[in-house]
Amino acid sequence: MDKQILYAVIMAGGKGTRFWPRSRERMPKHLLDIEGEKSLLRQTVDRIRPLVLPERTIVVTGRSHAEEVLRDLPDIPEANILIEPEGRNTAACIGLAALAIQARGTDAVMLVLPSDHRIANEKRFCQVLQEAAEMAESGQFLVTIGIKPTGPETGFGYLEQGDIVRMKGDLQIRRVKSIREKPDIARAREFFERGGFLWNSGMFIWRTSTILEQIKRFLPDLYEGLLKIKEALGTKRAGRVIENVYPLLPSISIDYGVMEKAEDVLVVPGDFGWSDLGSWDSLWEVSEKDENGNAVRGRFIGFDVRNSMVYSPKKFVAVIGIDDVFVVETDDALLICRRGRSQDVRRVVEKIEKEGWNEYL
Amino acid sequence: MDKQILYAVIMAGGKGTRFWPRSRERMPKHLLDIEGEKSLLRQTVDRIRPLVLPERTIVVTGRSHAEEVLRDLPDIPEANILIEPEGRNTAACIGLAALAIQARGTDAVMLVLPSDHRIANEKRFCQVLQEAAEMAESGQFLVTIGIKPTGPETGFGYLEQGDIVRMKGDLQIRRVKSIREKPDIARAREFFERGGFLWNSGMFIWRTSTILEQIKRFLPDLYEGLLKIKEALGTKRAGRVIENVYPLLPSISIDYGVMEKAEDVLVVPGDFGWSDLGSWDSLWEVSEKDENGNAVRGRFIGFDVRNSMVYSPKKFVAVIGIDDVFVVETDDALLICRRGRSQDVRRVVEKIEKEGWNEYL
Repeated sequence: MDKQILYAVIMAGGKGTRFWPRSRERMPKHLLDIEGEKSLLRQTVDRIRPLVLPERTIVVTGRSHAEEVLRDLPDIPEANILIEPEGRNTAACIGLAALAIQARGTDAVMLVLPSDHRIANEKRFCQVLQEAAEMAESGQFLVTIGIKPTGPETGFGYLEQGDIVRMKGDLQIRRVKSIREKPDIARAREFFERGGFLWNSGMFIWRTSTILEQIKRFLPDLYEGLLKIKEALGTKRAGRVIENVYPLLPSISIDYGVMEKAEDVLVVPGDFGWSDLGSWDSLWEVSEKDENGNAVRGRFIGFDVRNSMVYSPKKFVAVIGIDDVFVVETDDALLICRRGRSQDVRRVVEKIEKEGWNEYL
Repeated sequence: MDKQILYAVIMAGGKGTRFWPRSRERMPKHLLDIEGEKSLLRQTVDRIRPLVLPERTIVVTGRSHAEEVLRDLPDIPEANILIEPEGRNTAACIGLAALAIQARGTDAVMLVLPSDHRIANEKRFCQVLQEAAEMAESGQFLVTIGIKPTGPETGFGYLEQGDIVRMKGDLQIRRVKSIREKPDIARAREFFERGGFLWNSGMFIWRTSTILEQIKRFLPDLYEGLLKIKEALGTKRAGRVIENVYPLLPSISIDYGVMEKAEDVLVVPGDFGWSDLGSWDSLWEVSEKDENGNAVRGRFIGFDVRNSMVYSPKKFVAVIGIDDVFVVETDDALLICRRGRSQDVRRVVEKIEKEGWNEYL
């Protein structure tokens, strides 16, 4: 087999309201240096560099973030930044990217990657994606990356593993028997205790032609809209057509729309130290902590403070007599959140929207 | 009896480290608008206005706060602001003020008042002070104001009440049998349960000659130093002598140095709604609260937050899932403190001093 042509499609459309007050409408999570100095998006691009050159790295983002994305990724050609007129969920985003790759005259294998994950072992990450790409090469399979559950999480989809299709070293690639979207807690416990389930990481690997065929089969309305865009791609009309057609595409995730219904789905276990950094809680989990379990950025004094997180790069913070608390300070807003309650940050953002305090969104 | 000449001596020398990060070296507690719009010092001056005119109101403060005090009290003649070269505790402060009043050619009754108290009923406050001043008129007594304990506090001295000396309406003025300085918790419980004890409010009423005699008797070293200042008062040398002598005066409180030893001490019960606002906890106690028990200043969203306090006039604050927490935001520092633990704010200030982070002092 010739050296395959690999494209990366990085989905950078999210809002990340769960990282309020750091994430904002103008500054979504993937543009934040939530850990360390580089943005999560920048880290995502750099991480796949051993597999995919910048010329073959496509980033899909929203209009309001395009400028910031360009600034963050000066090495990515501007033509590779695809702008969604408005967010239409992952199926439309992936369909658009597949067309854009085909418009370059190639039916490449595409690595679909969220822009906001944390990966501990980057070398292993590339090895696993390389294996997945090889499984996708034939065009028969939709390949996903599954993560071994560490607890009965309700925030992820669960992939039920079937027969082994291939073994490569200690990497068992299996068929997916079923996909269970975000379960309730009782079901999540059952999956976790029974074993044989992996979390759906949201990373996918397939040929452009393969996914477009599956979209045609399971999401014909979406496919029809995409065809209109396809005809215009590479012509002067492209921008205007995307502008007009894209906002009318059905808004559905690739998981619900395709993966749950498709037959030939494989899963490669992603044993590279994964976290989706979906909330302040998950950031605390993966952060370096001091002897009291505190993850601190900024100048800090604590008395009787344990298992907490302080993010305050500008302001001095003192905490007295409180365990399990997250303190997040930005130029105009302050969050104090009990550890384990960071899913409710979303409610704060909803309340801000409702009150019309738009400067805090 | 002629209408007596009353002077007020307002002690504004404290640092109020317990209100960090709002109180600072340059901005002690009595200069803060800790409640409402006026500083506590300004409120103190205004409160006694029905009894004492500005010309007879003396304010003793430290050099670093003199400018701020003058700006806060434009109605008080500049000559009435006495500046301590350095703080030498209340006995020296009161001695200096007594001399300054005598230098005006009068042996007036002086009302000695801390500058950082909160008084709910100002009319009653003036009535009580008027009664106390009448008891002090003869020169026989040192008169204090006692506060009915609301709990076994360890932060106050306790006045053991003796025989009734005078009844005026429902006001029972009694002899003080003994003064027990800040007790441990077991002793405080005993005092509280036994009854017959009042808290020492730190407000005193006496003739200038009476207190100076008592200082001469019980604190001869201090008296000797004060004599040197007395000789210079009203001359050109006054400033220089105070500068040289005052820092060498013994540093002792009037309570330990005089009140505990003196015989003719009376106590007038101060039933005017008193709080010393000694800490964030005591401020929370007296603050107006919403239906969740939260005292809030600033824009605030809370989910599952009760019996808490948020002070953040500039920054939007969201709190999720935490009860009994105080959040205090200033331009350069942030305090998150468990309710009931605000005495430990002092430890934060000590730690800042130790680390040499002087910009936060």
